[in-house]
Amino acid sequence: MSGAVNFKNCGSVLITGANRGLGLQMVESLASGVFSPGKIIGTTRNLTGYLMIPLNQESIEKCAEVVGQLVKDEGLNCLINNAGINVVAELHSVTAEKMMENFHTNAVAPLMITKAFLPLLKRAASRGASRTMGIQRAAVINVSSLLGSVELNWGEGANTFRWYPYRASKSALNMVSRCLAIDLEPDGILCTAIHPGWVRTDMGGSEAPLSPEESIASVLSVIGGLTEKEHGSFMSFTGEQLPW
Amino acid sequence: MSGAVNFKNCGSVLITGANRGLGLQMVESLASGVFSPGKIIGTTRNLTGYLMIPLNQESIEKCAEVVGQLVKDEGLNCLINNAGINVVAELHSVTAEKMMENFHTNAVAPLMITKAFLPLLKRAASRGASRTMGIQRAAVINVSSLLGSVELNWGEGANTFRWYPYRASKSALNMVSRCLAIDLEPDGILCTAIHPGWVRTDMGGSEAPLSPEESIASVLSVIGGLTEKEHGSFMSFTGEQLPW
Repeated sequence: MSGAVNFKNCGSVLITGANRGLGLQMVESLASGVFSPGKIIGTTRNLTGYLMIPLNQESIEKCAEVVGQLVKDEGLNCLINNAGINVVAELHSVTAEKMMENFHTNAVAPLMITKAFLPLLKRAASRGASRTMGIQRAAVINVSSLLGSVELNWGEGANTFRWYPYRASKSALNMVSRCLAIDLEPDGILCTAIHPGWVRTDMGGSEAPLSPEESIASVLSVIGGLTEKEHGSFMSFTGEQLPW
Repeated sequence: MSGAVNFKNCGSVLITGANRGLGLQMVESLASGVFSPGKIIGTTRNLTGYLMIPLNQESIEKCAEVVGQLVKDEGLNCLINNAGINVVAELHSVTAEKMMENFHTNAVAPLMITKAFLPLLKRAASRGASRTMGIQRAAVINVSSLLGSVELNWGEGANTFRWYPYRASKSALNMVSRCLAIDLEPDGILCTAIHPGWVRTDMGGSEAPLSPEESIASVLSVIGGLTEKEHGSFMSFTGEQLPW
């Protein structure tokens, strides 16, 4: 499942929600890899870690400005929209507020963040115009979930995790990801949604089968190998394509 | 495309957004059909039409109470979540507020309305326990859109209608519909999402190929014929199953 992390041709990576869980693991795995990217930038909603840039609804533009100063003329090669929450609620406990909160963080924020960083992504894509699509040029990666697949929400798999806010937010994120893929393609910016597996993080809980190291080794391997073939698609950390 | 409207075995139908467009056409077509349902109840957010019951975020419970008094021990056989809006915005003009507004009306409201009417739907399903799944027993119909299909948002079909708020809200509604299908199945309540076609309404505009009469004749024919085979699926007004 795990592959070599190869980001050596990627000048810069920005990871949202990098203060813990999968985001923090991405930073650590990228930093300790043999083929690390030139720059690794982590953002967090609440400034708890060191070397993190604050990123919340009020500060998106400001954050893009700071990152612009860091990456300069090179632009940003890879934006990983990793930040997400799980507002657990089943049919009996779901409220409009819970639906709205999860949708805002998991689907709306990635869209607005991508919009804010678009000039930096375009800069990188334009400078790498001779390169093929992928993280060596410019890419937006949306960390989604298998639970966002409407198709797979049936039969055996549907009997657990009947979480309306989370599932609806991730299927909306998948749509946003597909829309972005269409709109960013003319600029040579790749866009793919990825399912990181069920992982032992604060969100995934202790019963999850994967460690953060295992998940992220696979996720980064998939991201590192993305080509125009996977543009606009929904990938599993295993490298397989998932149904919507 | 058009079929006979046969709701004769359906005791009561409630249609949201019944003051105009497809909702109003549903009321008219059901009322003028040879095989009409016992009771046709229309709701509207703003009380503009006659014989309409107000239904908005503040009045959902009150509305369910009024409807409960109308349908009495029979319960409600068919809830059609038709009300919806299109907050048109492409990548350059989309905002967090536009995303939230469309999601709230098109995905969250149908869920909260279904929750509020669940006791009435269960009552109908329980009384009709000897019947097969469908509108003769109890059913929730979510009026979705082809534009909510992530799968179909690619290639030629994707080059028009690059509306982030609408598309994301309808793919979220599709997920809500699928979740509801799973949760309502033990009670014998059918749940299906339906695409009514592109129709000449205020929302669809004057260039749309279908008249409201044509669309709703087909939609009602599909709804009238729903069985457990279409439970949890995404149907076109043509009777075909659509991909998520």
